[in-house]
Amino acid sequence: MKRTLIALAIVSATAHANEGMWMPQQLPEIAAELKATGLELNPSDLTKLTEFPMGAIVSLGGCSASFVSPQGLVATNHHCVYNSIAHNSTPENDLLANGFLASTIHDELPAAPGSRIYVTKEVTQVTEQIIDSDTAQLDGKARLDAIEANQKRLVAECEADAGHRCRVAGYYGSLEYFLIKQLEIKDVRLVHAPAEGVGKFGGDTDNWMWPRHTGDYSFLRAYVTPEGESAEYHEDNVPYAPDFHLELASSPLNEGDFVMALGYPGSTNRHRLPSEVESTFEWSYPKTVENFTTQLAIIDSVTATNKDAELKYASRVAGLNNYLKNRQGMLDSYGEGEMLERKRAEHAALTDWVMSSESNREAYADDLEAIESLLAESQAQSRADYYLNNASPRLLGVARALYRLAEEQQKPDSDRDLGYQERDLPRFEAFLRGMERNFDVEVEKALDFHNLSAYANLPEAERNADFDQQMGISNNMSDADIRNLIDSWYANTTLLDLEARLELLKQSPAQMADTDDAFVRAAVGLYAFDREREAEREERGGKIQQAYASYMRAKIAYMNSQGEAVYPDANSTLRVTFGTVEGRGHGTYDGTAWTAFTTLRGITEKATGEGEFNAPANQLAAIAAKDYGDYYVESLDSVPVNFLATLDITGGNSGSAVLNSKGEFVGLAFDGTLDSIISDWDFNLDNTRSIQVDWRFMLWQMKHVDKADNLLKELGVE
Amino acid sequence: MKRTLIALAIVSATAHANEGMWMPQQLPEIAAELKATGLELNPSDLTKLTEFPMGAIVSLGGCSASFVSPQGLVATNHHCVYNSIAHNSTPENDLLANGFLASTIHDELPAAPGSRIYVTKEVTQVTEQIIDSDTAQLDGKARLDAIEANQKRLVAECEADAGHRCRVAGYYGSLEYFLIKQLEIKDVRLVHAPAEGVGKFGGDTDNWMWPRHTGDYSFLRAYVTPEGESAEYHEDNVPYAPDFHLELASSPLNEGDFVMALGYPGSTNRHRLPSEVESTFEWSYPKTVENFTTQLAIIDSVTATNKDAELKYASRVAGLNNYLKNRQGMLDSYGEGEMLERKRAEHAALTDWVMSSESNREAYADDLEAIESLLAESQAQSRADYYLNNASPRLLGVARALYRLAEEQQKPDSDRDLGYQERDLPRFEAFLRGMERNFDVEVEKALDFHNLSAYANLPEAERNADFDQQMGISNNMSDADIRNLIDSWYANTTLLDLEARLELLKQSPAQMADTDDAFVRAAVGLYAFDREREAEREERGGKIQQAYASYMRAKIAYMNSQGEAVYPDANSTLRVTFGTVEGRGHGTYDGTAWTAFTTLRGITEKATGEGEFNAPANQLAAIAAKDYGDYYVESLDSVPVNFLATLDITGGNSGSAVLNSKGEFVGLAFDGTLDSIISDWDFNLDNTRSIQVDWRFMLWQMKHVDKADNLLKELGVE
Repeated sequence: MKRTLIALAIVSATAHANEGMWMPQQLPEIAAELKATGLELNPSDLTKLTEFPMGAIVSLGGCSASFVSPQGLVATNHHCVYNSIAHNSTPENDLLANGFLASTIHDELPAAPGSRIYVTKEVTQVTEQIIDSDTAQLDGKARLDAIEANQKRLVAECEADAGHRCRVAGYYGSLEYFLIKQLEIKDVRLVHAPAEGVGKFGGDTDNWMWPRHTGDYSFLRAYVTPEGESAEYHEDNVPYAPDFHLELASSPLNEGDFVMALGYPGSTNRHRLPSEVESTFEWSYPKTVENFTTQLAIIDSVTATNKDAELKYASRVAGLNNYLKNRQGMLDSYGEGEMLERKRAEHAALTDWVMSSESNREAYADDLEAIESLLAESQAQSRADYYLNNASPRLLGVARALYRLAEEQQKPDSDRDLGYQERDLPRFEAFLRGMERNFDVEVEKALDFHNLSAYANLPEAERNADFDQQMGISNNMSDADIRNLIDSWYANTTLLDLEARLELLKQSPAQMADTDDAFVRAAVGLYAFDREREAEREERGGKIQQAYASYMRAKIAYMNSQGEAVYPDANSTLRVTFGTVEGRGHGTYDGTAWTAFTTLRGITEKATGEGEFNAPANQLAAIAAKDYGDYYVESLDSVPVNFLATLDITGGNSGSAVLNSKGEFVGLAFDGTLDSIISDWDFNLDNTRSIQVDWRFMLWQMKHVDKADNLLKELGVE
Repeated sequence: MKRTLIALAIVSATAHANEGMWMPQQLPEIAAELKATGLELNPSDLTKLTEFPMGAIVSLGGCSASFVSPQGLVATNHHCVYNSIAHNSTPENDLLANGFLASTIHDELPAAPGSRIYVTKEVTQVTEQIIDSDTAQLDGKARLDAIEANQKRLVAECEADAGHRCRVAGYYGSLEYFLIKQLEIKDVRLVHAPAEGVGKFGGDTDNWMWPRHTGDYSFLRAYVTPEGESAEYHEDNVPYAPDFHLELASSPLNEGDFVMALGYPGSTNRHRLPSEVESTFEWSYPKTVENFTTQLAIIDSVTATNKDAELKYASRVAGLNNYLKNRQGMLDSYGEGEMLERKRAEHAALTDWVMSSESNREAYADDLEAIESLLAESQAQSRADYYLNNASPRLLGVARALYRLAEEQQKPDSDRDLGYQERDLPRFEAFLRGMERNFDVEVEKALDFHNLSAYANLPEAERNADFDQQMGISNNMSDADIRNLIDSWYANTTLLDLEARLELLKQSPAQMADTDDAFVRAAVGLYAFDREREAEREERGGKIQQAYASYMRAKIAYMNSQGEAVYPDANSTLRVTFGTVEGRGHGTYDGTAWTAFTTLRGITEKATGEGEFNAPANQLAAIAAKDYGDYYVESLDSVPVNFLATLDITGGNSGSAVLNSKGEFVGLAFDGTLDSIISDWDFNLDNTRSIQVDWRFMLWQMKHVDKADNLLKELGVE
């Protein structure tokens, strides 16, 4: 499981034992279940965001993490800091391959540009300020604009507190809104990462699989000014002193024990409409699988003989592979099950309930019908634009964003669209700088050629006249024509140059329009079309928001009438999920089962000395010598490496601290198993298992292999 | 696990829970354990060879089997009748591929020549008649000759009862001897075998593996004269009416349930001397792995384009692959464990015990020393003769056996060596006839070339002058010389012709010596050398018998002094082993476990539509349609296929009936798992699992796929 990229979730789910990504403030409602499963802490203590243990839990924006020392040391997954390791890697000094350990605090390296650590400080219910009485009267784009204006106002007020970042998140299908206030730490440094042969052991082959033996952990450190203020990287900055940090577990962890994961799950879709399920599994996911497979093949062929390009694309390749396996896994599960039939039956029951009383009919019937036709329209547009969207070169996307920013900057800050305000400028700059380490012209040309060929070969009626005109597409282009066209773009752009890119950040729309740059010129030329298409989307979006909220209100009322409680779907906000350490009675193959723990034995079993299973020689030697030290577990006759639990996690939970019944650190969640990914749509306790790296493995590897004694001391290990 | 080929075992073992291949008469001694494990029958009932259920258990000579109907229907493994299916297969009518079902009793096919069904009738302690007071005074060859003479006398007396076959078997390292009397049924017919895609599903890939989905069952029928006498095949023969037969289980079988396997385990080596362990695992097994790997490659390359030859060698290829995997599996386990060190420590403890008292020293010390030097001599000879023995072409082996037979036939029957008496003639004839279906000149020439090259390239001093002279080997032979030499042998032999082979059975030594046949002439020429080498072996063999018996007597006395009971090692006689249906907490890979049952799901998972995983289309269709009928097991949500149990079995147990606590048939043992094969040397309950085909799968396949309604009716299924 890798960084979450998925759009916000807009639906909710029912609560079953061990199911649920609970908002901290909901935990008292399930106190009995928590206690029954083994929690020794008072559930009410988990609701306090500024106390232990919640105060130690942070977001990296896409991944979860936690403070594990008083000096701002942060534990998260290796795959969550992969970009930062790659950013500091060169062919001569390949930190990905060799791992990294800062010998002293002065040797810690800046994380990749844009790296952030967010500490949630406040979560405030703001539904009545977002959907105020005026907004409630609006529909379509006007409604969406009003919601956005309200959001921006609340965010601006919130961010008046310097060093903080705020956002308004929708819950229960945008029935409810909460304002999230986070301390934003901008100076993030890489402290320690094991070798890729540990941190990514098993690679894409083992990704989403059990048995698993991945040491998917790394350490960052949060830095602030000597005065304790959030600030960009500066050599005078000092380690941040968090109010709270997690302590390592003081007792063993065994199968059956209570565990909970605290983190920021990205998105789940457990109550989507049947038509959304169908469109996703019958069209969208298969298309993604096809597209990513092709992209990977192209990147692989171009980077095969170019180590520099290979490093630049390592993170993207990892991401594509991860999503590919995820989507294919879901498609496989979908093919074997009857989810769509069940969703249809459930929706039919809901519809029956709505139609069963005059009041329900009046409250919900129209919206229930409206949402279907709105979603159908939206899906039709997605299909029509599929090849067009793919055909847009990456640099055109950059130019479009920069020109859009220039246009928005003509307005007062508070009137600008979300994502184009002053507060967003540092992210733009980080993005433009990051391209130095993740962009290669030959790779992009090869991708462009593939995508453009598919688009250009469409009949003229299925192409987009604006795009064709701006990019120089015509009928009956030969492969050579297309290659020449692509070459001409890259021969006529300054976007490959960092300084030129940064310069564009300062330009006005008029200055940008006065350009010979192929991509910038096209971006300017497409601006009117882009805005028109956006306005259509927003018009539909506003209607969808209204109808979907109504549909969800109906659904919640219906489910409550069935005696079922409801928790909000994941939306990248802080959540708690609990369960037990537990293997599985049915394994990957008929006749096999999964044990709850893997051990060092499995590393030796899998090690091949190369590629994805390139366990370091000194690690294998330590295993062969049975150099287990304090981390030996008798029942396993080895050191535990990874463990399974019934935790309800998803993308975004990567790096989540997993705590035992006393709230002590026992590991990091980093993955689920392939046949349980579909639980994002359809939770199944019988199948669903999260995969954690055991803290005892982390400590064993750090002590007996990587000799990270300085860090161990900081973690409180004698 | 395939037909046992190993020499008789000569050692014993201690008894632990679920360990032990018990002689039926020993069962009352372990009645408490049997009851505690769940046996509902009276253990004493299991001791009676001519009553239920023992009366239903038979041997096929290398495999085990059982009567399962009053009409002499016999259930055993598919791999135990593989020869008989191959014997009846042709390229046009490939019964191996398609399976076979006799529609009526008249359609049953003769099994392969030499097929027998043996029903054990009596087991009598005869130690004092074998080692009588005169024999006890002898040593070396004289001792062995006396033992053999006593054996032959007892066997001859026993076989005076027409239709019976008798043998004297040594137990507890030839400390004790028992006379085994068996009814010998000579007219054996093939009744039903599923398609190879069922009966051998998984092929060599899955052999010795779990999870397993092999329908390793087939049915034979025993035929006798209308008067009920044992007789060779005759169309007037009628089905044999056994005194007892097994009934199908009347209740479900679940994990944890008591089971027992009744059959004829071939050989175990659990108490071998450390020097034997070392020689076997450090030299003999590695050499076997090397040799069989080469043989398989040669046979594969020659038969690749010759379907007839492929069918002829199918059984041999299966056997070689099976042994290869077995030996490699043991070598792997040996490499991971510390068996040799432990055996040395145990032997040191025994030696200490022997030396600890005057009486022990006097009784055992000399023999304990003698056995070591005798075994060392024997091992040195094996190593010296390794290439020579391999270099002997198969037809030279046939000629040597025939000439030896001719020589022996010059003596009165009772004076002849074991294996060359009148009683052995039918086996000779069956063997010579069987070559029609298992011998191909091109394959044999290719094997000869490989073996002869290895031998001929040895320095002259390491070759054998007699063999060189008789076979035409000289120094510095080129590949072409060797090929020409081999061609010349086959151009000058009549042994390829069945009638000529059978004719040789009747010839005198003088007639045979007067020949131009290359192989027969060499056999005659090597006879003196062969006898000389045999005499040396026998001299050593007599001494080994005496010293080994003494060593074993010491060992038993020592173990009894430690409070440990002893059961005799397997020696191809009727034994009972009991245990429970049980999965395993550690699977093939770290992080996995084994469930006790596999299901039809696994067949679909593994099916590839070709090769070793070529599940029949109608079977896959029945699975896809969930056409489970009466064989559905709710806890598995499918039909069970194979199951694991803690039964202590080995080669020769293949086809053993497995019975539940009431003595009802619940399946057929057919394999062990790769990492438990070494239990033949070193029993380990934590690892050791036997694999059974579940009777419910057999019935499901017969009813829902193969439509074997006639047989189901005979088995008592409505």
